[in-house]
Amino acid sequence: MTDADFIDGAVAQAMRGAEEGGVPVGATLRHGDRLVSEGRNRRQQEGTIILHGETDCLRQAGLYGAWSETEMCTTLSPCMMCAGTLVQFRVPRLVILDDVNFGGNEQFLRERGVEVEVRRHDRMISFFSEWKAAHPEIWNGDIGV
Amino acid sequence: MTDADFIDGAVAQAMRGAEEGGVPVGATLRHGDRLVSEGRNRRQQEGTIILHGETDCLRQAGLYGAWSETEMCTTLSPCMMCAGTLVQFRVPRLVILDDVNFGGNEQFLRERGVEVEVRRHDRMISFFSEWKAAHPEIWNGDIGV
Repeated sequence: MTDADFIDGAVAQAMRGAEEGGVPVGATLRHGDRLVSEGRNRRQQEGTIILHGETDCLRQAGLYGAWSETEMCTTLSPCMMCAGTLVQFRVPRLVILDDVNFGGNEQFLRERGVEVEVRRHDRMISFFSEWKAAHPEIWNGDIGV
Repeated sequence: MTDADFIDGAVAQAMRGAEEGGVPVGATLRHGDRLVSEGRNRRQQEGTIILHGETDCLRQAGLYGAWSETEMCTTLSPCMMCAGTLVQFRVPRLVILDDVNFGGNEQFLRERGVEVEVRRHDRMISFFSEWKAAHPEIWNGDIGV
């Protein structure tokens, strides 16, 4: 698994979410060269607020366990639920593709020992910006506003 | 729904979790006099780290929405995932029945505007203490240690 696969996998999950009528946020989890899991926001698909891209990705990983040796990529900067989840399970590194459409918890993550790398993905940022403008009610509900 | 129902409902969920072979942590969510949802840790039952008592309780509430007018009771002081979730969705009040067997995020919650009331429940504290001592591997996995 290449670095590009790690990024592209998260973007592909976001796009699949959009096709399903969901919130287009995706995530991938890797352990060295191994892809552990992929996930996407399932708010609309499963009718729950707790399945964001990051938490769904961890759900897909089941009881994998070696969280402190993994690394996550998320297409959108994590909310407080997802940031808290990464801290609790000691995921040590997070790559964020979009900190333009949502953000604010990067500092919390860094203070709690998570290495955060923002690697802006122009296509994902444009896509999410348009989606957010077109679906304000879903988006606000997704982040509890 | 009385105050006792709110507390007893969370304890009953924890006990049901124990009967299922799971981590005995339960939670209830109320909105004024209405019980919105009940939940329990489902790590063992569903094979995922993201379903603690609090997050499962919110999952059971679906897209209820009026989170900022609700109140949660949890049998065990919340981990960082669950504390972050309550902050993100603006649940303004949390009753904790056990801060002896686990804790440490009360200050984080208070700093982020959540009113925290610790109301120690002796029977629940004893029960969880014995469970934790008997199941160290499940417990450590549950909190990502």
